[in-house]
Amino acid sequence: AAGIIVWEEENFQGKRHEFLMECPNITDRGFRKVRSLKVESGPWVGFEYPDYQGQQFILERGDYPRWEAWSGNSGSRTEHLLSFRTIRCANLKDSRMTLYDAENFEGYKFELSDDYPSLQAMGWGNKEVASIKVHSGAWVAYQYPGYQGYQYILERDRHNGEYRKCSEYSAQAHTSKIQSIRRIQH
Amino acid sequence: AAGIIVWEEENFQGKRHEFLMECPNITDRGFRKVRSLKVESGPWVGFEYPDYQGQQFILERGDYPRWEAWSGNSGSRTEHLLSFRTIRCANLKDSRMTLYDAENFEGYKFELSDDYPSLQAMGWGNKEVASIKVHSGAWVAYQYPGYQGYQYILERDRHNGEYRKCSEYSAQAHTSKIQSIRRIQH
Repeated sequence: AAGIIVWEEENFQGKRHEFLMECPNITDRGFRKVRSLKVESGPWVGFEYPDYQGQQFILERGDYPRWEAWSGNSGSRTEHLLSFRTIRCANLKDSRMTLYDAENFEGYKFELSDDYPSLQAMGWGNKEVASIKVHSGAWVAYQYPGYQGYQYILERDRHNGEYRKCSEYSAQAHTSKIQSIRRIQH
Repeated sequence: AAGIIVWEEENFQGKRHEFLMECPNITDRGFRKVRSLKVESGPWVGFEYPDYQGQQFILERGDYPRWEAWSGNSGSRTEHLLSFRTIRCANLKDSRMTLYDAENFEGYKFELSDDYPSLQAMGWGNKEVASIKVHSGAWVAYQYPGYQGYQYILERDRHNGEYRKCSEYSAQAHTSKIQSIRRIQH
């Protein structure tokens, strides 16, 4: 058991396939959709659409018997998970990133090296997050406090860790409001 | 601003009330329901039904413009939040609890003093959590990995920190499967 196992029906029923490497389009494997999955080693990131597009879903070791388990109850209820790939993490202690309230790494900034279930409680206040620089590791940012709502995966190994405006971290670009952030670990 | 502000409509619209202390039944204040809220200082815990019954929702500092922001996408979609109270936390470094795979604090055990987005990755495997002892602090346990799904608030200051069977931590008793756990902080 070394990868991610996906099923076409809820509760690990129906057509099944195990992946050890990334999958740009699950429909190429004859799946109409993915309704449940188990992550045996991780972490992975799932995407709403093929070729790693659309909403993002962090997939850590464990059982996901239904769509709700990974979707985090996003506002626009889509049941698609059509592509997925692994994420490269850093040692938790070495994870570091900076938030900026203006685009292109300008304006008020706030350096993170821990998990923050409430950015407001840590002094970020009600500011928008306009740009982000990931210095090391991989992170997941959330729309709401307590790690709820839309998810944004932020990685040192993508875009050179640089997200210059909110459309670069939020493909859906629904909002630039981030209220909680945590490190991703193995 | 020192408490929790609730509104009857989404996006902080309509009838409004600020609470500094616990509220056993929001309908006593003339509210039919709560559709959005802001936590100015926390943490609080919200409950589905009056008198702190039913599903539990951790409410940390920040903005909750819609029901989905606090519900964590629980399986049975209820839009009620009818009572709420504050939570007493410990210093994060002092938070400590023990999980057991049998009732009454018996069987295989696993001691926690950190946040665990995947209990399976930490060696708990696929075991049910049958009983829990909270030695210090306040915690929130989740049905799914990555802090998603049903939430169970676990406090040293309630039940003497002792949850002898799953119905004692999960009022809904839908499941004794816990896949992620984190400490609650101010």
